[in-house]
Amino acid sequence: MLTKNTKKICTLLGTRLPIVQAGMIWVSGAKLAAAAANSGCLGLIGAGSMQPELLEKHIIKARSLTTQPFGVNVPLLYSKAKEQIDVALEHGVKIFFTSAGSPKMFTDYLKGKGATVVHVTTTPELALKCEKAGVDAIVAEGFEAGGHNGRDEITTMCLIPQVVNAVSIPVIAAGGIGDGRAVAAALALGAHGVQIGSRFVATAEASAHSQFKDMITQSGSSDTMLAMRKLVPVRLLKNEFYAKIARAEESGASAEELKELLGKGRAKAGMFEGDLREGELEIGQVSGLIRDILPVQEVVSRLEQEFFAARESLKE
Amino acid sequence: MLTKNTKKICTLLGTRLPIVQAGMIWVSGAKLAAAAANSGCLGLIGAGSMQPELLEKHIIKARSLTTQPFGVNVPLLYSKAKEQIDVALEHGVKIFFTSAGSPKMFTDYLKGKGATVVHVTTTPELALKCEKAGVDAIVAEGFEAGGHNGRDEITTMCLIPQVVNAVSIPVIAAGGIGDGRAVAAALALGAHGVQIGSRFVATAEASAHSQFKDMITQSGSSDTMLAMRKLVPVRLLKNEFYAKIARAEESGASAEELKELLGKGRAKAGMFEGDLREGELEIGQVSGLIRDILPVQEVVSRLEQEFFAARESLKE
Repeated sequence: MLTKNTKKICTLLGTRLPIVQAGMIWVSGAKLAAAAANSGCLGLIGAGSMQPELLEKHIIKARSLTTQPFGVNVPLLYSKAKEQIDVALEHGVKIFFTSAGSPKMFTDYLKGKGATVVHVTTTPELALKCEKAGVDAIVAEGFEAGGHNGRDEITTMCLIPQVVNAVSIPVIAAGGIGDGRAVAAALALGAHGVQIGSRFVATAEASAHSQFKDMITQSGSSDTMLAMRKLVPVRLLKNEFYAKIARAEESGASAEELKELLGKGRAKAGMFEGDLREGELEIGQVSGLIRDILPVQEVVSRLEQEFFAARESLKE
Repeated sequence: MLTKNTKKICTLLGTRLPIVQAGMIWVSGAKLAAAAANSGCLGLIGAGSMQPELLEKHIIKARSLTTQPFGVNVPLLYSKAKEQIDVALEHGVKIFFTSAGSPKMFTDYLKGKGATVVHVTTTPELALKCEKAGVDAIVAEGFEAGGHNGRDEITTMCLIPQVVNAVSIPVIAAGGIGDGRAVAAALALGAHGVQIGSRFVATAEASAHSQFKDMITQSGSSDTMLAMRKLVPVRLLKNEFYAKIARAEESGASAEELKELLGKGRAKAGMFEGDLREGELEIGQVSGLIRDILPVQEVVSRLEQEFFAARESLKE
């Protein structure tokens, strides 16, 4: 998958492939991140669902499972973001993906420690702010992505060309990328690399509950929807909890009412403990394309083959 | 742009390029369709905003402006769809794009008259129904597309690979395709051709009001939204009318209330008569990428150049 563009990302992240395994709460611990790293991708430990002590354990474990570089994804809306960052720095982590907050918060601090910083954005305007804040690269994530999402609902197809036009640093496309055809598409749109989430949830090494993984492989093309626009927009697999939220939204529920319906601990209950009815099941729209639970190595090998076939299909 | 896949569409439609200029109410009359045809694309007259008599005039005029094949787009929800089809058949039109209704309604009839039939879909399941109804090809249109839209909100990036997996007839990708990078992306996803709407609205030959065209070239990445989900979902450029609808929807307005707010003739007022405040301005999310009003020939020439550059960028 090496092209003039992707080489920039591979050099920046120290990987063989221009693929980032997305940091995902309750899903991407040491096992998934190390398996992704061992397969040539950048593996990311998702710190969002971890106390700093647990994050420390995952970093130590990941290092025992791979000699390849891996990074940490830190959602900045959590109160312990700074502690998470410091724990990771102490343990020699050199690559940070930050999200859900301003790129100004920690970019200078991390760059001062010699780290590489990538920030997640959902609009070209925010991408430009990230560049000005000094980040090394951007993840541009479209409306079809799983979990927390932007308010402007810009899809990957529309977002990537506009972000690439807006900034001069490398752009990693995310949202809707489940196979090698979509990797080729994202690169054709001008991206320098891709970040893949959902496809890595349905792997042996993901820490998601096995019943959640099964539900993904059985889901159809229309089985996710964006919900809770008045609170924090989030893409969910349809279940009883989603239906409750959708009904409330249709009748004009306020942010406060949605917050009460959401309650606490639903993401853990759904994705980690397997409560498929009442849990929050964060997954991308591309889950309709995912039909099997595979080892990470096999996912990556298929991505490569599909990419080469897609590129070949564009020839005269 | 000729590849193994695109050759199928070019042969089916009799065009040089695998590009369809979308049929659009109040925008694509004889002038636009003929200019698209003369540039190597399939031009489509949008019958949705025309009485059968007016459609007849546009067909006669288009024939006087081009020797290349062009077609007619017939939204099946209008009461005069059958009359429109018969007028077009009488005047020798051989290519029909049908939408907003069941592919079973007129496919047999049209095939019996020797016509080529393409039906517009927004899910892989409906694409399969179209194939079973005997259509020659499918337009698979994503959430980012302008105007009327599917209820499942599947984006082009997620939709095309799933539709291509589901059917064996050619697939024309639509939604979010505004430049040659997106054409290359759509083909990498497995599409055999593309349908482009918004980019052709901002052309000299489109019959859209000049102030609407100007507004498109000035719009930003976040300036369209999907609205009226409870009635018929439609993607609109944000204006006073959109804001009114959005406020009503946030407070839980019913389909009936939305219908009353919508009233009659808003699409004509907005797109054709230039009422930018209170009119309905149907346009795709990709309008954020459109910065100039160009002759159709120049749009197509740029699409080709950008496609070749995007394909080149995928090489090692």
